[in-house]
Amino acid sequence: MALIVQKYGGTSMGTPERIKNVARRVAKWHAAGHQVIVVPSAMAGETNRLLGLAREISDRPDPRELDMIAATGEQVSVGLLAIALKALGVAARSYAGWQVPIRTDSSFTKARIEAIEATKVKGDLDADMVVIITGFQGVDEQSNITTLGRGGSDTSAVAVAAAFQARECLIFTDVDGVYTTDPRIVSEARRLKVISFEEMLELASLGSKVLQIRSVEFAGKYKVPTRVLSSLTDPLIPIEEEIRSGTLITFEEDEHMEQAVISGIAFNRDEGKITLLQVPDRPGVAFQILGPVAEANIDVDMIIQNQSVNGTTDFSFTVHRNELDKTLEVLERSVKNQIGAREIRADAKVAKVSAVGIGMRSHVGIAAQMFETLFNEGINIQMISTSEIKISVIIDDKYMELAVRALHKAFGLEQSE
Amino acid sequence: MALIVQKYGGTSMGTPERIKNVARRVAKWHAAGHQVIVVPSAMAGETNRLLGLAREISDRPDPRELDMIAATGEQVSVGLLAIALKALGVAARSYAGWQVPIRTDSSFTKARIEAIEATKVKGDLDADMVVIITGFQGVDEQSNITTLGRGGSDTSAVAVAAAFQARECLIFTDVDGVYTTDPRIVSEARRLKVISFEEMLELASLGSKVLQIRSVEFAGKYKVPTRVLSSLTDPLIPIEEEIRSGTLITFEEDEHMEQAVISGIAFNRDEGKITLLQVPDRPGVAFQILGPVAEANIDVDMIIQNQSVNGTTDFSFTVHRNELDKTLEVLERSVKNQIGAREIRADAKVAKVSAVGIGMRSHVGIAAQMFETLFNEGINIQMISTSEIKISVIIDDKYMELAVRALHKAFGLEQSE
Repeated sequence: MALIVQKYGGTSMGTPERIKNVARRVAKWHAAGHQVIVVPSAMAGETNRLLGLAREISDRPDPRELDMIAATGEQVSVGLLAIALKALGVAARSYAGWQVPIRTDSSFTKARIEAIEATKVKGDLDADMVVIITGFQGVDEQSNITTLGRGGSDTSAVAVAAAFQARECLIFTDVDGVYTTDPRIVSEARRLKVISFEEMLELASLGSKVLQIRSVEFAGKYKVPTRVLSSLTDPLIPIEEEIRSGTLITFEEDEHMEQAVISGIAFNRDEGKITLLQVPDRPGVAFQILGPVAEANIDVDMIIQNQSVNGTTDFSFTVHRNELDKTLEVLERSVKNQIGAREIRADAKVAKVSAVGIGMRSHVGIAAQMFETLFNEGINIQMISTSEIKISVIIDDKYMELAVRALHKAFGLEQSE
Repeated sequence: MALIVQKYGGTSMGTPERIKNVARRVAKWHAAGHQVIVVPSAMAGETNRLLGLAREISDRPDPRELDMIAATGEQVSVGLLAIALKALGVAARSYAGWQVPIRTDSSFTKARIEAIEATKVKGDLDADMVVIITGFQGVDEQSNITTLGRGGSDTSAVAVAAAFQARECLIFTDVDGVYTTDPRIVSEARRLKVISFEEMLELASLGSKVLQIRSVEFAGKYKVPTRVLSSLTDPLIPIEEEIRSGTLITFEEDEHMEQAVISGIAFNRDEGKITLLQVPDRPGVAFQILGPVAEANIDVDMIIQNQSVNGTTDFSFTVHRNELDKTLEVLERSVKNQIGAREIRADAKVAKVSAVGIGMRSHVGIAAQMFETLFNEGINIQMISTSEIKISVIIDDKYMELAVRALHKAFGLEQSE
């Protein structure tokens, strides 16, 4: 017997019939002697519907009130799931974030969890009840409802698993695990049985949208064994088989001994690139450029600055493609003349492709192999950025699929494990 | 400057556009220098949608979880209204029942308000903010969300008005006040400018569904001046004109000096009648009959027991028509043989018609005039029940409209005030 946290996404909770299936799955784990805490998302489409109502009323709705409204989606889910479990004869009790309470800071629409009080939930678990806790939300010190931002239910589940020292956090979703790349682009893509926390972090942030990145950080910080698996299987599938079907995110180095050098190829088509030409190479220039961009609430992804020649350098960075115009506006207004850049160029038609693998730490030549593969396909590399376990390149977006397929093959990812 | 509580029903809150209109009306009162607390209902149809989801999952959903789910409807409303007010430049803050908190007992789906804490809301009002509080709900001692039952937002509004000693509680709804009877049945029906608390209580419980009866009880207990008025007028109508347009429920006897003897004719078509023939006339029989009915959660309305003849009597009562079969079942199973009644008769085709008026206290002959009017129309009276300010009769339901029209005319209600 162990404590298990299970998170179910909006699609899994999408209809009363599907909620009954979630209840059957939870009841199975409970019947096998496990203590279970469930963290469900809002029913699919509900959060968008609620935020849509708010936006019909105002272009700039107040964040505190947005959270008040958006938090109701998960509250409905927990109540419905509790009813479904009781209909199966399983004692269950639902909690809104503030009832647990899950304490957060006061950053409405993107709050961070600070503490989770365990007393009430522990009591219910010890009384053999299934406890159902709203994902995505908490409560601040002034009793305001806060939400954690999009995908926040993943983070809630992992945080709850950490707080209650659960044996595992199971993230049930509409895919059955983490793949070496997107199977819609490379049909030979293979499900990974195990992936390291660091690799998952790189893959999540690069566009393999299986888990919200903050939840992975949380899992890493508190070493919560987290498993991604499918909610589309028969809910009464034997538990041993169910466990084998997903991808485990692990924190144990040695489980990786046998793994390939590269675990997956990630990609992101939403990038826009900006280059400032002939920027004076003096201290503080990078801050002078990116300070105003950050102040305008624009997220910057890759940043590249080359060695200077004749006292000037070219400075490039990427932002979300939708924010390219806004970024250009900020640069023209607050940066260009101030730092004395000659010209600003923008390109909305770029994509980022990355090879990720904890194995590359101990292997040389991975970067060279990657560049050679792209060269062989005639793909020009516009920007390069590397970390310990990741190499990313920016290329013309029309070559993105070709690059992903070529790299997936070059690193032998299509072979069976 | 005074503190005003305003309640808006589900139709008034039904769409983003209508919510903007509510905000305009509230902003007008605020601009005139009033402190305003708003208590909105869930958007029209929302509570039914939520409860429908629960019923799709289980025929007997758990009441605690039903409240968890149903309470979200009002939570969305308060957030949307706060956003609409801020869009008009009016500082506003929303509160869920538990955030105020509005403390109730733990009777899920039909909780009663026990206390309302004023500190936080008072602080906001003093800071010139409009405060928006969810109707229909509160929180019990164990931090469970509770709801007050259907129409509970009226009760919330009156309770809030009482707690904050508001000058008036304005109930905005889709009718413009309380009428002498239903204008759909008697076109000459007239809006009452003032009605006494006691009359309103009788009219509300008899089927003039303008205000939830518990809210009227609350208004009476705490002497909250409560005004029913239309939310369908131009939201920017001058405040003096707005006030004149509704019906004020009052607690001052002398305001009624000039009023007619009868204030209105109420009716209810949902009644079913049950008669137990030849029931032994001994102590405890009434309890033996109605005890099992109450235990089966069936609400009983009128109860009649006549003088006994030869040691037996006939015992009649009415229930909601939809519960007639269930009631019969209970009586056949647990009552009939136990008390030795000869026969049980049921009639689903009856209606109740009542004349209500505080003036009848000091007038004789009202009952006689009522019975004569019905006799002149050839309508047979099946049951009679009276209180200090009300006379009710049960008649064949096919005569209901005829009876209402005839009584409305006989008591001179169609004349202008």
